[in-house]
Amino acid sequence: MAGVNIKMLANKLNISIATVSKALHDSHEISLATKQRVLALAEELNYVANPYASSLKGKSSKTIAVVIPEVADSFFALSINGIESIAQKNGYHVLIYLTHESFSNEQAIFKVIQNGRVDGIIMSVSSETTHTDHIKDLQLKGIPVVFFDRVCEGIETVKITTNDFQSGYDATQHLIECGCKNISFFTISDKLAISQYRLAGHRQALTDHQLEFNEEDIVLCNNDEVFNYEVIKELMKQKKHPDGVIASVEKLATTFYVVCKELRISIPDKVKVISFSNLAAAAILNPSLTTITQPAFEMGHAAASGLFRILGEKLFNYKKESLIMPSVLIVRDSTSSPTKGK
Amino acid sequence: MAGVNIKMLANKLNISIATVSKALHDSHEISLATKQRVLALAEELNYVANPYASSLKGKSSKTIAVVIPEVADSFFALSINGIESIAQKNGYHVLIYLTHESFSNEQAIFKVIQNGRVDGIIMSVSSETTHTDHIKDLQLKGIPVVFFDRVCEGIETVKITTNDFQSGYDATQHLIECGCKNISFFTISDKLAISQYRLAGHRQALTDHQLEFNEEDIVLCNNDEVFNYEVIKELMKQKKHPDGVIASVEKLATTFYVVCKELRISIPDKVKVISFSNLAAAAILNPSLTTITQPAFEMGHAAASGLFRILGEKLFNYKKESLIMPSVLIVRDSTSSPTKGK
Repeated sequence: MAGVNIKMLANKLNISIATVSKALHDSHEISLATKQRVLALAEELNYVANPYASSLKGKSSKTIAVVIPEVADSFFALSINGIESIAQKNGYHVLIYLTHESFSNEQAIFKVIQNGRVDGIIMSVSSETTHTDHIKDLQLKGIPVVFFDRVCEGIETVKITTNDFQSGYDATQHLIECGCKNISFFTISDKLAISQYRLAGHRQALTDHQLEFNEEDIVLCNNDEVFNYEVIKELMKQKKHPDGVIASVEKLATTFYVVCKELRISIPDKVKVISFSNLAAAAILNPSLTTITQPAFEMGHAAASGLFRILGEKLFNYKKESLIMPSVLIVRDSTSSPTKGK
Repeated sequence: MAGVNIKMLANKLNISIATVSKALHDSHEISLATKQRVLALAEELNYVANPYASSLKGKSSKTIAVVIPEVADSFFALSINGIESIAQKNGYHVLIYLTHESFSNEQAIFKVIQNGRVDGIIMSVSSETTHTDHIKDLQLKGIPVVFFDRVCEGIETVKITTNDFQSGYDATQHLIECGCKNISFFTISDKLAISQYRLAGHRQALTDHQLEFNEEDIVLCNNDEVFNYEVIKELMKQKKHPDGVIASVEKLATTFYVVCKELRISIPDKVKVISFSNLAAAAILNPSLTTITQPAFEMGHAAASGLFRILGEKLFNYKKESLIMPSVLIVRDSTSSPTKGK
């Protein structure tokens, strides 16, 4: 059925337009029963909403916001370039906000963004973010939010991610094939969807290779470099330290190298390491670092393209615009076998 | 004389306030003779202007812009964190614009910024920037511009720099002391003040150590990674390649390492290298990289502090707020002598 709009849904269900809108946005203000009625009818009539097309009728700020944890990380630095290339083409300004991995910072940023300052948001959530009301509130106000890399599962929108489960699996399998039996998984969050997928892939690979998974093999770091250094140093000081490490964030690999250098633990002889990383210098580290490399620029590019299509089109199908872009395993010396040499 | 203002200057000289303002801003619209009359009287009466204090009376956008060449460089990534820390404290938003080292991009950005979108600008000019009318025009419109790292000599404002001459001198002297006799200087600009100061320091050190300076020892790179790779590879393929290299930009050091690895030229045995760099991974490169490290976070912090003082104070003395913050030479293995070993 063509031309179905939100008003028709409201009329047929004999409820207000606002209630339909909130139900479609999965608002906590609406009961489950109402949500189910709205969604059932929407599906029946093949209703595809673009709640944001209307915002273009009003005054556009010609500005989009990018909300990310930090810029001193090569993944985010490169993805900004990808976002910027599309924004510039569309004549838009890019506001960059840094959460520094703090949920309260993220909430504060969303509060100030609300004042019609931006037309849309591209974001990668902080490592602390578990509640999403601040994001849903903004969507309800007609400001679209697009996710890249670190997404919120419970929110329907364009999501640009990589194959995180598979990457976690591949990283672990690679270490196992290199002879590792005691693998630690370094992460900065046990709550983020991206961390959970990578960790699930890791666990699956262990199971498939008849290796045991121990909770204490998850090393939980955070945004405090000194804390991370201490935690990793304590781990590596142990007589029976891990013989394989997966760093799910680039900076943890850098800290790991520094610790091993200090403790004179040879990589890859005594411990092998693989990192999720876009570091240009990975190939020239001592030893060169095996990486899972994400298509950072392309992900930023895709996220911005998705946002501008939301802003420009009256009908919009989020799922059609969501993308999973594969990461690449690049094997270097940090996981080479002693027999293979350098 | 206290309380001297621009109107008093205009009255005494019998010219319009606008003319005085333009003369004080060194506008090209004003004759040299008029400028000299205005400046002479201003100096006589000890007039210190803050042309921007008035902009606070109007509607503030609570937004500042940061105009920089790129974010995928650890100096700029860290300095943004410094800027952001001050902006957040003042309740301001930070817009980030990237010029990608292009002068025409920079001009286009200044054109869109003009529409009262920001209260002030913190910038590091592109490697192509030689003309400064776009910056002066904005100052005339009452939007203050503060420079950090890469400054324009001809514009009076707050400038946060490092001791570039001394750093260039120290880098060269260090290489000479390590036994280098044939030193190449890698740069991305022969026009920027910062490049010229570093190069002047380099030349002075050569002279002081009775070594000859040759124009062809300056290797001019740009923003095209493939081009840089080719130029550096051609240089290092020569039988009589340099025995010492100074990289004035971080990414040129990374490219240099890659080239040497490919050509199997051992660092530091066959060639030593030192780079201006804030790379966290410098210590774990193969070999670890000797750096001139700038106080990046602190420079961003100081630039933003200067901007907010311009915005907040009626009287403002630019020179008082300008700072030269020393960089630090950190010696690592990339310049070690073969006899010293690793």
